Amino acid sequence: MQLHDLTWPDVEDYLQRSDGLMIPIGSTEQHGPSGVIGTDAMVAKAIARETGVRSDLLVGPLLSIGVAEHHMAFPGTLSLRPSTLIALLQDYLHSLAQHGFRQFFFINGHGGNIATLKAAFSEIQTGERERGGQRPLRCTLVNWYEVAEVVRLRKQYYGDQEGRHATPSEIAVIQYLRPDLIRKQPLPPPGPLQSEVQGAADFRAKYPDGRMGSWPDLATPAQGQVLFDAAVRGLAQQVPTFFSEGG
Amino acid sequence: MQLHDLTWPDVEDYLQRSDGLMIPIGSTEQHGPSGVIGTDAMVAKAIARETGVRSDLLVGPLLSIGVAEHHMAFPGTLSLRPSTLIALLQDYLHSLAQHGFRQFFFINGHGGNIATLKAAFSEIQTGERERGGQRPLRCTLVNWYEVAEVVRLRKQYYGDQEGRHATPSEIAVIQYLRPDLIRKQPLPPPGPLQSEVQGAADFRAKYPDGRMGSWPDLATPAQGQVLFDAAVRGLAQQVPTFFSEGG
Amino acid sequence: MQLHDLTWPDVEDYLQRSDGLMIPIGSTEQHGPSGVIGTDAMVAKAIARETGVRSDLLVGPLLSIGVAEHHMAFPGTLSLRPSTLIALLQDYLHSLAQHGFRQFFFINGHGGNIATLKAAFSEIQTGERERGGQRPLRCTLVNWYEVAEVVRLRKQYYGDQEGRHATPSEIAVIQYLRPDLIRKQPLPPPGPLQSEVQGAADFRAKYPDGRMGSWPDLATPAQGQVLFDAAVRGLAQQVPTFFSEGG
Amino acid sequence: MQLHDLTWPDVEDYLQRSDGLMIPIGSTEQHGPSGVIGTDAMVAKAIARETGVRSDLLVGPLLSIGVAEHHMAFPGTLSLRPSTLIALLQDYLHSLAQHGFRQFFFINGHGGNIATLKAAFSEIQTGERERGGQRPLRCTLVNWYEVAEVVRLRKQYYGDQEGRHATPSEIAVIQYLRPDLIRKQPLPPPGPLQSEVQGAADFRAKYPDGRMGSWPDLATPAQGQVLFDAAVRGLAQQVPTFFSEGG
Amino acid sequence: MQLHDLTWPDVEDYLQRSDGLMIPIGSTEQHGPSGVIGTDAMVAKAIARETGVRSDLLVGPLLSIGVAEHHMAFPGTLSLRPSTLIALLQDYLHSLAQHGFRQFFFINGHGGNIATLKAAFSEIQTGERERGGQRPLRCTLVNWYEVAEVVRLRKQYYGDQEGRHATPSEIAVIQYLRPDLIRKQPLPPPGPLQSEVQGAADFRAKYPDGRMGSWPDLATPAQGQVLFDAAVRGLAQQVPTFFSEGG
Amino acid sequence: MQLHDLTWPDVEDYLQRSDGLMIPIGSTEQHGPSGVIGTDAMVAKAIARETGVRSDLLVGPLLSIGVAEHHMAFPGTLSLRPSTLIALLQDYLHSLAQHGFRQFFFINGHGGNIATLKAAFSEIQTGERERGGQRPLRCTLVNWYEVAEVVRLRKQYYGDQEGRHATPSEIAVIQYLRPDLIRKQPLPPPGPLQSEVQGAADFRAKYPDGRMGSWPDLATPAQGQVLFDAAVRGLAQQVPTFFSEGG
Repeated sequence: MQLHDLTWPDVEDYLQRSDGLMIPIGSTEQHGPSGVIGTDAMVAKAIARETGVRSDLLVGPLLSIGVAEHHMAFPGTLSLRPSTLIALLQDYLHSLAQHGFRQFFFINGHGGNIATLKAAFSEIQTGERERGGQRPLRCTLVNWYEVAEVVRLRKQYYGDQEGRHATPSEIAVIQYLRPDLIRKQPLPPPGPLQSEVQGAADFRAKYPDGRMGSWPDLATPAQGQVLFDAAVRGLAQQVPTFFSEGG
Repeated sequence: MQLHDLTWPDVEDYLQRSDGLMIPIGSTEQHGPSGVIGTDAMVAKAIARETGVRSDLLVGPLLSIGVAEHHMAFPGTLSLRPSTLIALLQDYLHSLAQHGFRQFFFINGHGGNIATLKAAFSEIQTGERERGGQRPLRCTLVNWYEVAEVVRLRKQYYGDQEGRHATPSEIAVIQYLRPDLIRKQPLPPPGPLQSEVQGAADFRAKYPDGRMGSWPDLATPAQGQVLFDAAVRGLAQQVPTFFSEGG
Repeated sequence: MQLHDLTWPDVEDYLQRSDGLMIPIGSTEQHGPSGVIGTDAMVAKAIARETGVRSDLLVGPLLSIGVAEHHMAFPGTLSLRPSTLIALLQDYLHSLAQHGFRQFFFINGHGGNIATLKAAFSEIQTGERERGGQRPLRCTLVNWYEVAEVVRLRKQYYGDQEGRHATPSEIAVIQYLRPDLIRKQPLPPPGPLQSEVQGAADFRAKYPDGRMGSWPDLATPAQGQVLFDAAVRGLAQQVPTFFSEGG
Repeated sequence: MQLHDLTWPDVEDYLQRSDGLMIPIGSTEQHGPSGVIGTDAMVAKAIARETGVRSDLLVGPLLSIGVAEHHMAFPGTLSLRPSTLIALLQDYLHSLAQHGFRQFFFINGHGGNIATLKAAFSEIQTGERERGGQRPLRCTLVNWYEVAEVVRLRKQYYGDQEGRHATPSEIAVIQYLRPDLIRKQPLPPPGPLQSEVQGAADFRAKYPDGRMGSWPDLATPAQGQVLFDAAVRGLAQQVPTFFSEGG
Repeated sequence: MQLHDLTWPDVEDYLQRSDGLMIPIGSTEQHGPSGVIGTDAMVAKAIARETGVRSDLLVGPLLSIGVAEHHMAFPGTLSLRPSTLIALLQDYLHSLAQHGFRQFFFINGHGGNIATLKAAFSEIQTGERERGGQRPLRCTLVNWYEVAEVVRLRKQYYGDQEGRHATPSEIAVIQYLRPDLIRKQPLPPPGPLQSEVQGAADFRAKYPDGRMGSWPDLATPAQGQVLFDAAVRGLAQQVPTFFSEGG
Repeated sequence: MQLHDLTWPDVEDYLQRSDGLMIPIGSTEQHGPSGVIGTDAMVAKAIARETGVRSDLLVGPLLSIGVAEHHMAFPGTLSLRPSTLIALLQDYLHSLAQHGFRQFFFINGHGGNIATLKAAFSEIQTGERERGGQRPLRCTLVNWYEVAEVVRLRKQYYGDQEGRHATPSEIAVIQYLRPDLIRKQPLPPPGPLQSEVQGAADFRAKYPDGRMGSWPDLATPAQGQVLFDAAVRGLAQQVPTFFSEGG
């Protein structure tokens, strides 16, 4: 169920049986010469949507822009300052807390968001405590690509050529979700991983075409479907478990 | 063209011929007993997408959460503080300005966003001036429901029963875009418009089911299609005109 | 009655009979070659003061600096970032709410303030709601130059040469209020209105002497008096009406 | 000269001969049972205005609301959070720096503003430095009641009964400036000064009628005129001296 | 070398040979019934100091307060909102960048700081990029307890009873550094680890005495010395390596 | 007693007998050619520590970075924006207020912090009042070098050559506390005091070696001990007195 597809009386009904909401969060950033800029957002949204269907739980609107400073030397990338994303998450969660939602499960598609999400959870819990709230908001996040079965599949399919950005696994999921976006031009094998990136210019100097040690050409739509299903299966277990702990 | 569907080299190519981008902005808010919470966001996104196709211009990611304080007494509504939305718009536009975009045309689906969008344009232009930018960012907004032909059709189709919120015109567009979301239960005719609303509780006291003088039951998918096409036709003229003035 | 002219026991007495306050807000910005920089502030202040006298209602201190980014290419203009004005309005209203004021009627002299005022109203109402306030603060604004009778007179006196900035109507009110400031040097007729202004440099490029299609030379002190009286008469009706709705 | 009374070409001319501006800042706060709420603002404004006349230097718009948390238990008091006043001062000075003003002399009427003004000067100079400005903005403040001759007169006229708030000296200046505001009801002699005030409730507990050890009944309009003239004479020397040091 | 122990000419000399600085960051938070509140700060400071000695590199002032919301139900804990810590880190690093420092190696003693540190690095790099800085600031962090040899020793010494908070390893280092603080009263063995903590009240409900599955009684000063030396040895290699990459 | 040296049950016990805490605050800034950068922080910390011992009252963690914009033209200086320090102080005090602390006595080592500390006290008290707190937080500050007996000794020892920055009195206390940091190279006598400093570049232009009219060579460790003892004796009286007033 998508919050956007419900009426307000539907939400009132939902709150009778659950105070939990899933929130997909992605990024709008370069994904190499063949990966589309919306990759992280589209994948997080689709996985959350399907997880909502299978678990009969509600999904809130996608946060499609994340923290992507490292990718800012490539045209088309958007990046939020972490303090902006913290403010945005405060408003998102405080709005829902007003209606009775207390539990939030973020389904994340971009590693660069993790630090700011965790910082925001802390900032929100400080605010709740200072206002004297009796029951704190409960927040957690899972990166879809770190669901156990997905990790196993990524290794099996792509081994070392999975890399760290513009990975064949995420490209494969996009190929499954959006076959119209498949690019045919072959890419050379990836260069090696470099030392820790420091800022946008450094990223582009170390990884001139935007990939981090990945070979997206290995991706196939069929693998994408398997990866997608594995992520959804894993999350459709984890999300209800998390919500039941806070019940 | 959707920014999310492009690779970064595609964006590099686009910037050779245009420095303009459309940005759809909606809201996540109650739309009466039969209208879905994502109405403003879905309509703005779909109209921007189709305008992008017809005008061969780029569309950035949807801003699906707006300023909806007035609707916060109805479950499911999200609202950003205006200062948060200003910060978010700063980061969105500054990111794109880094890549060479200079012109931004917001396609807006929610009246409550207008004030904050205009405030943000001013704040962004102050920032640009203080940093000594040579060419200012150009920003404008159009509400899709105020495109001239759309205004005419809304009057023709619904007259006084168009109302001011959860209007049959926006419901009709959703019926056209998402027939799966059509609700069948009939609503009573709308009550009269009240004096100016002051905050969330006052809104609900004055408009207990969330409609503001509107009768969404008048909506049909066929009207929705006509309204949608009129909005796109109008915008497919206005957007390129705006961008050419700043060229 | 001016808040500044009362003692604190006077205010305590006033609160026995009203929880409403008028707030004049103007701007400090260029008004063409013959209009003074304080025009918007002086006019708003004088109209609010006289409205207070006629309606026996209290007037708070003038906000003399507004949002005037568009005029920043002309020396002497001051402009607040919208986020600063929102913070200032929060403190102004929260201070008064502490004492029991609940209703605020802004008498505005500058179009550039409208968006930020409305954004601030929303931000303040969000804050009130989150703190759990039982009765929300009520806020509204009226531009003195849009009082119905003032609109009629502006058209009658100046027709198309009223223009949009440094208008003969506001110059006339200043001539009435401050005859010592009347400038005698004749100006040429105004140039035509241009397309939407984008930032300070663009404003000056389009309107090199600071006027927007206006011919201030048409102004007379006698017209200024008529305009002033019309604004006050209109507001002396609207303000008590607004306050009584919230009673 | 008042900035509000000039046109933009007048300001352009002024900048040929000076880059300095005086800024009056007061407060909107209780001044005991017989002192008006606008005392600090009115006095600062009038002294700055007359200093401007005598020194032929420009005076910017009054900041009429200051930091007055200690007085918030008395109706009618307004108080800005220091962080708000810092933001407001940044925008005020940055706007003028855009036009070429580099020197700012604050004429202050309220002790509670001093800390925040000094903090703002530091914050503004940090900002200027980080933007790489070649010549820093120069800022200083003088409290009119601490001009040497004013200090002497206050002691001579009122001795120990000058007190620390709602003092006969400031009441006297208001009596001189605004004889219409003179209150006749006699007050009892002041109680003793108490230990350091901690917040608004503590202030009212220690000083129930709002005075801090002062006896405003001693004030006369004639004394007010002498005090006013002494302040202006002192400032008409200090202001040009300060500006010439930065020339 | 401690920055605090140098004169400014000493720093000028240092900058001739290095643009790198170590920054210790800890926390002020409960460490169970026998661990002192300053544990994380003291350990980080001492390890950084000794690493500075061995590597002949400079150490900046300790950040002794971190993000410790989870521990706020225990008296004595301090916690910064992440947005405050981001602002503090911006000022710390921007100040040093003014003098020519470009590389910052944080030696961290508290897991709760990691997310905010990483968010701050991103926010700082965005700011640098937008100001047009040619060479970005380089920032990294290492948790002393995750230095490889320290990880090995913790497992060897304490096995499962190391736990996750108020661990014997950190208590041991404090015992080595500050034998005067050794507490003698025996604690019961630790309870089991619980599901993910959600806020301060939840932490105390799950871990009533403040330990997370740890048995601090296992700690000895001799182990503390070995752990301390292992951390310093590891860092005395990592820090110069990091700085040399950015040279 | 140092908060850092206690366990949380110790703090629980302390709160049974006192709700007061001392907080040392210094600065990290140049202190001339022979004074170390940590002077203000080390002195404030040591005096607070010893005052805590003698008065049996608790001392919170040192704030070692202050507002030092004026010194930013000398390498090694750190400076917080006042708004950052206000935020930091809010979090510091709000954290402790959560546990029951209500009274805070700042022992300050740097004149540049005073304005921001006072602004922060006001901002914190506004926040407390708006949240409806029954008993306000009580805050005060004393500069150790302005304790009466210290003032007398400074005049006696150094007369006019005490100066205003990098003074022999603070150097002497450091010599007493840290004999290992004593510098031997002789400095020339100080130049004269200049007109009010305006920003970092102006400071260095007026005081090229960082001293403000001071001759640190006059300092001896023995004097440092006397000064230190005088400061502690004075504070060991003032702190308990302040706390008892708020009891």
